[in-house]
Amino acid sequence: MALLGVVLVVLCGLITSSQGLWPEPVTFTSGASALWAPPQLEIAVACQNETYSSYDVRGQSLYVIARGFFLDLYSQLPYRGNSSATGNVQLSEQAILQASIQRSQKAITSTKLVPWKFFRRNEAFEPDLSEPKVFLGKVQIYQASLAPNLDAAAFFAEDESYTISITAEGTANITSNSTLGTIRALQTFEQLFYAHSSGSGTYTPYAPLSIQDTPQWTHRGLNLDIARNPYSPDDVLRTIDAMASAKMSRLHLHASDAQSWPITVPSLPALAAAGAYQSSLAWSTADLAKVQAYGLCNGISVFIEIDMPGHSGSIGYAYPDLITAFNESDWSTFAAEPGTGQLKLNSSAVYDFLQTLFADLLPRVSPYTQLFHNGGDEVNVNAFLLDETVRSNSSEVLQPLVQKLMSYVTGLVDTASLQPIVWEEMLLDWNLTLSPTGPPGGSGSNGTAGAIIQVWRSSANLLLVLQKGYRVLFGDYTHWYLDCGHGGFINPYPTGFSPPGIPYNTSGGVPTQISDPFLDYCSPLKNWRHIYVYDPLVNITSDLEYLIEGGEVHLWTEQTDPVDLDQKLWPRAAAAAEVLWSGPRNASMIEGASKRLAEWRERVIVDHGVGAGVVQMTWCLMEGGCDL
Amino acid sequence: MALLGVVLVVLCGLITSSQGLWPEPVTFTSGASALWAPPQLEIAVACQNETYSSYDVRGQSLYVIARGFFLDLYSQLPYRGNSSATGNVQLSEQAILQASIQRSQKAITSTKLVPWKFFRRNEAFEPDLSEPKVFLGKVQIYQASLAPNLDAAAFFAEDESYTISITAEGTANITSNSTLGTIRALQTFEQLFYAHSSGSGTYTPYAPLSIQDTPQWTHRGLNLDIARNPYSPDDVLRTIDAMASAKMSRLHLHASDAQSWPITVPSLPALAAAGAYQSSLAWSTADLAKVQAYGLCNGISVFIEIDMPGHSGSIGYAYPDLITAFNESDWSTFAAEPGTGQLKLNSSAVYDFLQTLFADLLPRVSPYTQLFHNGGDEVNVNAFLLDETVRSNSSEVLQPLVQKLMSYVTGLVDTASLQPIVWEEMLLDWNLTLSPTGPPGGSGSNGTAGAIIQVWRSSANLLLVLQKGYRVLFGDYTHWYLDCGHGGFINPYPTGFSPPGIPYNTSGGVPTQISDPFLDYCSPLKNWRHIYVYDPLVNITSDLEYLIEGGEVHLWTEQTDPVDLDQKLWPRAAAAAEVLWSGPRNASMIEGASKRLAEWRERVIVDHGVGAGVVQMTWCLMEGGCDL
Repeated sequence: MALLGVVLVVLCGLITSSQGLWPEPVTFTSGASALWAPPQLEIAVACQNETYSSYDVRGQSLYVIARGFFLDLYSQLPYRGNSSATGNVQLSEQAILQASIQRSQKAITSTKLVPWKFFRRNEAFEPDLSEPKVFLGKVQIYQASLAPNLDAAAFFAEDESYTISITAEGTANITSNSTLGTIRALQTFEQLFYAHSSGSGTYTPYAPLSIQDTPQWTHRGLNLDIARNPYSPDDVLRTIDAMASAKMSRLHLHASDAQSWPITVPSLPALAAAGAYQSSLAWSTADLAKVQAYGLCNGISVFIEIDMPGHSGSIGYAYPDLITAFNESDWSTFAAEPGTGQLKLNSSAVYDFLQTLFADLLPRVSPYTQLFHNGGDEVNVNAFLLDETVRSNSSEVLQPLVQKLMSYVTGLVDTASLQPIVWEEMLLDWNLTLSPTGPPGGSGSNGTAGAIIQVWRSSANLLLVLQKGYRVLFGDYTHWYLDCGHGGFINPYPTGFSPPGIPYNTSGGVPTQISDPFLDYCSPLKNWRHIYVYDPLVNITSDLEYLIEGGEVHLWTEQTDPVDLDQKLWPRAAAAAEVLWSGPRNASMIEGASKRLAEWRERVIVDHGVGAGVVQMTWCLMEGGCDL
Repeated sequence: MALLGVVLVVLCGLITSSQGLWPEPVTFTSGASALWAPPQLEIAVACQNETYSSYDVRGQSLYVIARGFFLDLYSQLPYRGNSSATGNVQLSEQAILQASIQRSQKAITSTKLVPWKFFRRNEAFEPDLSEPKVFLGKVQIYQASLAPNLDAAAFFAEDESYTISITAEGTANITSNSTLGTIRALQTFEQLFYAHSSGSGTYTPYAPLSIQDTPQWTHRGLNLDIARNPYSPDDVLRTIDAMASAKMSRLHLHASDAQSWPITVPSLPALAAAGAYQSSLAWSTADLAKVQAYGLCNGISVFIEIDMPGHSGSIGYAYPDLITAFNESDWSTFAAEPGTGQLKLNSSAVYDFLQTLFADLLPRVSPYTQLFHNGGDEVNVNAFLLDETVRSNSSEVLQPLVQKLMSYVTGLVDTASLQPIVWEEMLLDWNLTLSPTGPPGGSGSNGTAGAIIQVWRSSANLLLVLQKGYRVLFGDYTHWYLDCGHGGFINPYPTGFSPPGIPYNTSGGVPTQISDPFLDYCSPLKNWRHIYVYDPLVNITSDLEYLIEGGEVHLWTEQTDPVDLDQKLWPRAAAAAEVLWSGPRNASMIEGASKRLAEWRERVIVDHGVGAGVVQMTWCLMEGGCDL
């Protein structure tokens, strides 16, 4: 009879589009029956550890959340709003799992999203309150394993696949192979629920329901520049909330540049004291740990970039002797933009500085992430004409010195069991050999080098990197730069502006001669549709795809600060997130995506306070679309 | 000795750039002495009325604010945050003046703007607290006249010029010829003050100081579309705060369109009940009155546009019989965008409807404004093929009917002593004769027609309108459309999109063939520098300039809603505000403007909660500029 009931529901209201879910899961089928979330929603985990031969249902143990009698470990973690956190809390996979479950329990039972925008005006779209409520039962998670100890590299390599099944009667099961898989399942589960406008509770309208899901790529990243304008840790925590809701997995903090050094390094205190925009704005070590731990609890690896040897001028505010061409007024000779300054290239003081810096930084970030970014983009050769340790702008002179410097720092990163990432110029323009002995899990099995190469200039360069056998991140500026199209920030305005190393009209990059002085090198603005249909695999042969770790969408912040951060990031970074999770999209998918993405947007606004921009006009959402 | 002191200060620290002031005043000179605002700052007004033969210093009368013993009339006005306001408060110029003074008193003594971003990092830039504080004395306003009764048309025609003088010893005088002039003076005065980071008070660093100021144009407007996406009255009140701070004088609410009808009309209750996105989102009559009254108290005339005969489809949700081509799925045949629908052109029911509508609306809006906008843009001739009252798309057939309709509604507007405004198509494309007998103050003295023509397509059209002898508003889409550059909102995306009546590559408009599917007809995005150097007088001979009322910067909101409203509007609308107040700018002024506009931006963020976007990177502001 139960089976027949399900069949009847399926016949009456089977839905196969992924209404409400972003990113789109691999498979999704649902009915149209409502299930209400009980105020005391129970989510339990059963784990099959190496030490267990069968599922151990721990329904009343450490993992039962939201019963009121349970240790609220999450509140003890260094997370958003907990200003007393020191960042030294010992994390475990158990604690992470527990935090994730508690977050979802709260999200499901207290979401404020009333989805009126997705129905015709004044239409009744909610469960009829005069009907008896059917409640969701205990959500049972069957997780195949739980690591006894937390190892960031192992954690972020876990299988992210999961399934969800919910019957019309309220039985809900989640299966996963790991904590990371459970986190992804719960992020999906949260998106199934809405608030009733009467205030009488939350419900899902999609029962019975079945979802199977697994990501296309593991590195689903956002590169956020926190050096060009000042950001607080809270700005980043809010960003992590939105990233998690879109199942992003990597937050790349571009944490130093010529303009400021916002991160406190205790062994080099002058760096942030003099190099932050104001010393009071510098992030403490606890701030950084808090942001990383919060990412970890959301399944996001938060790693930092210390850019070098270019984009390092802000070191000069504290240590002018380490920097050549520090804040030269003739900036266009020495850098892609004001201000100028690069690490001197053949200076023992620079090496001493880097040793001190990395000895301080790396042990502090490595509990939370497996990654470290060494920069390497847009090195300006002219700056070394002013460097008394080299006095040359010849690539032949400079190349071995750049090789030595980058080998030194990637070696330090390797030694700390972190995976180095560098920008593509180091490989393609400077022809470096990069970190031939990678960290555990870093070296590929086919003779690939340990460093991951981040490509930002073109699809053609992506292919070149792959052909050299390196692992790679995609996301070039003609597709995935969120800062483009607002015009240059130089007064009165730049004309014919081009980034270093990118001549006009070459295969290495798409920019054409800029005739309109109000454009910038990477105009036009990349709207969400543009970002959504970017195909990173174009021209990539399938035999090379295994080297693609994933990609990143980028926000450089010369013209963004905390006030407009959310609008610059969202919903566009979420459009990228679906490409990264679900694989390349095409134009025919835009129509379906617009409604799902619009719903995702409403959810992050009301539930996370993220000020995401508009996906589509309300009229289009309510009237069934605005399509050609 | 006092004079000598002033001379010494002038020699030591004369500043002639308008630091901190936006828009730029006609003349500005200042020293570099600090004056502190006393917590009980006193601002008094002396008025020379027709009935007074000399200045009557009313220091202890109705006009003294912030002493604690005084009637706080402002709090009784229907203003932001006062939800109990009915909108029926009797306003007077005295009350408006008083409200403005109280607002400024609060702003001066409680601003939160610490201007650290405009000085080098960790530099000391504030008054030394170990020095004795010199306090600002009573601010004495000498206002030449005060109208005994409030008449909106007369009020908004008042002389806006003013002077401010402040001595190093703290004597402060304002002179003006009217309440409106005093309001502008106080808006400037507020911008002279900063918060000390110690929390020990607010100060101006610019004493002694002298300002003389008067605007270039009276109509300094913003056109905000509140029909494409839903906005609350609070969103508009916040917008008025920012407008006032930039000395804008006109808020044009595009209050109806095909997508929604957000304004409640009691005599036609179905209009908003069925036509708003949700009936609960419709503005009440009190909401509209509150917004208008708040504008009035800030020297801003808030007027509404009821667009017709095009862009009127939302009437069809309530009254389908009045609308032809209502929500046709083949939208591109019948409108510039989804949804479709126009008022039927030869229908007595339509005339009855308009009579009822205007009899309700006009008496309610006219206490607060002298203006009313009748629309008239983008009339689609094909929609009338489906109109059983005409069944034609021939301009010859339609023209006399459009003339009759628009003459009827502008006649109603005239009769209500309001000044009609219509879009340029009515004159240039349809060759209408518009409102030959304007309202008091409306008709020009040189045989000009009563209607003001709003040009939006090109500078060439601006000239055409002027040559026909009509008064005009500038602000075309190639320069002052804030919605451009984000790509079309149609799925998957439009190609070769062009607004009706604008063929590619014509003198009537600048758009070129769109080859990139991610652009829109008015790409690229208009950044603040682009908006700032728009010269509305290009190609206009000086003999025609007297017909220019001013202009408007436009935000159509297909892709904007309350969440990203502020970022779309600001700082860009403020860039337009300086053009409107100070006259046409040029590229050489951008460098100086970037710092002043950036300071204005910081002020509206911290003091008004307006989420304005970035003007320039913090590094550029701190390091003295980022200039070519």
